[in-house]
Amino acid sequence: MAAQRPEVLISEVAPRDGLQSIQSIMPTAQKCQWIDALAQAGLKEIEVGSFVSEKLLPQMADTGTVVAHSRQHSGLCVLALVPNLKGAQAALAAGAHKLSIPISASEAHCLANVRKSIAEMLEELGHIVRAVEQYNATSSQPPVAVEVGISTAFGCTLQGSVSEHAVLTLAAKCAAIGAQEVGLSDTTGMANPAQVKRLFTQLHHDLGDRAGAAHLHNTRGLGLANALAAYEAGVRTFDSSQGGIGGCPYAPGASGNIVTEDLVFMFEAMGVSTGIHYEQLLKARAVLEEFLPNEPLYGMTPAAGLPKGFQWPTP
Amino acid sequence: MAAQRPEVLISEVAPRDGLQSIQSIMPTAQKCQWIDALAQAGLKEIEVGSFVSEKLLPQMADTGTVVAHSRQHSGLCVLALVPNLKGAQAALAAGAHKLSIPISASEAHCLANVRKSIAEMLEELGHIVRAVEQYNATSSQPPVAVEVGISTAFGCTLQGSVSEHAVLTLAAKCAAIGAQEVGLSDTTGMANPAQVKRLFTQLHHDLGDRAGAAHLHNTRGLGLANALAAYEAGVRTFDSSQGGIGGCPYAPGASGNIVTEDLVFMFEAMGVSTGIHYEQLLKARAVLEEFLPNEPLYGMTPAAGLPKGFQWPTP
Repeated sequence: MAAQRPEVLISEVAPRDGLQSIQSIMPTAQKCQWIDALAQAGLKEIEVGSFVSEKLLPQMADTGTVVAHSRQHSGLCVLALVPNLKGAQAALAAGAHKLSIPISASEAHCLANVRKSIAEMLEELGHIVRAVEQYNATSSQPPVAVEVGISTAFGCTLQGSVSEHAVLTLAAKCAAIGAQEVGLSDTTGMANPAQVKRLFTQLHHDLGDRAGAAHLHNTRGLGLANALAAYEAGVRTFDSSQGGIGGCPYAPGASGNIVTEDLVFMFEAMGVSTGIHYEQLLKARAVLEEFLPNEPLYGMTPAAGLPKGFQWPTP
Repeated sequence: MAAQRPEVLISEVAPRDGLQSIQSIMPTAQKCQWIDALAQAGLKEIEVGSFVSEKLLPQMADTGTVVAHSRQHSGLCVLALVPNLKGAQAALAAGAHKLSIPISASEAHCLANVRKSIAEMLEELGHIVRAVEQYNATSSQPPVAVEVGISTAFGCTLQGSVSEHAVLTLAAKCAAIGAQEVGLSDTTGMANPAQVKRLFTQLHHDLGDRAGAAHLHNTRGLGLANALAAYEAGVRTFDSSQGGIGGCPYAPGASGNIVTEDLVFMFEAMGVSTGIHYEQLLKARAVLEEFLPNEPLYGMTPAAGLPKGFQWPTP
């Protein structure tokens, strides 16, 4: 029975973006069980961890093991965040399918986030791209891809507004260096739909099929409106987080990352297929809730339930 | 100093939709003080109450006094909800500028909400339109307008899905009977952006400048995405509620009505002027908070604050 090809790709970031924001460390077996439930729900791309210093983020120390486990799900793209060449080498050794490199459009944020300037990060990206090319040349597996997420693409809490020209210039440089995809991240929840539409439209114009994901936050309640604007601008890959965990929420009730459950409901209600089973997604949410009993989970659709008579399409 | 003409009209519904949903009764003097603060913030249309049976809604028993008080704000359209001719006569006597009549697209909801069938409500609308025409013929004031809000236009918790054809046919009948504006209400929070865009686009096609407001809920988190879709379909009047009060929230954290503060931020961030002062709007919110200390107020922008460096345009 051939599954219908989803029209949008939901890239689940909670195991990385969510768990790294939480004080407590989820045990490896629990991470794997939750990722299994997410894969069961039909998620086709999951950012399962990041290869960073254990001292900085002890929550991510087991990423190699988690990557190796996640690779068992056929059809799942196992994504890992890497901030530098060392991280990329570890990710390749562990068997990650795709590497995600964060480069900020704001110099101040770049220094704060990865302790490197934008210029230094571009140099690092070059090293990573070459390491991946060498790896792919000798590997019998499908080629590993490199994506860049341009952080603070819509504004920065440190420097304030960020020039759209600077964002697009940086994106073009990343593509020229060899990133297969370059996406834009609203790291600080400052984006608005007009800006999202303008920037992604131009990104598609400049980069063609190298224009990547929209990574949006719901800090000021505009997350799904921004996702709609990105969709209208041609974006077909959306980062989101189960239960809205992670993404530096500012205030109680204010999730950081947009909530996978609500995003998926929006697309399915619009008739845009995501390939995700809603009931299975709620089962994965229950797993997360069990493992993080003291963390608030966000999402309005899980609270309200699906509308009366709503037929979730079987993926 | 001429104020820039706002590009969208925000119609504040909290004094009616919010206060009628709350058990406690806000004293008349407090209602008036809060409405004064809303008018100070630049709101140009406020639904200040409803003319309904005191037994059914004791919270609205003082609507006549509140209308009379609100009329003192020059440039403010004082809107009152009326479910029948008797209510309309009371609203005209009190001096309301505009009457809002709720007619459901779902027969089951119509009976539950106003204890009349759709056919009976259309007959009632005819009586109201004629009463207003007679009133206007002898009045020295600007003519009173009649608007219809089509409830459950995007789905019904009683009957499930609602046919788009039924909604548009009903809207056309209301306009033919003489309503100056016919808007669509997502009473149950079941709308999605594709449906909102489709229905409002067709409404504008069918009714021209009689196509009215979008009244949207945030039950499943899609409220602002739906507002964006309505804006793109040509809607320029949006109902919303300060602090998101009212609109039958389903669950904690799930507001019913879309939140005025977030909606106004979205439009201003997009460069679409609302004519509203944000700081004054927060002052009105503080007044509401003081008068309803036990009610949760929603809104992500008030919690997160405006983005760093964000320049709110002076209306």
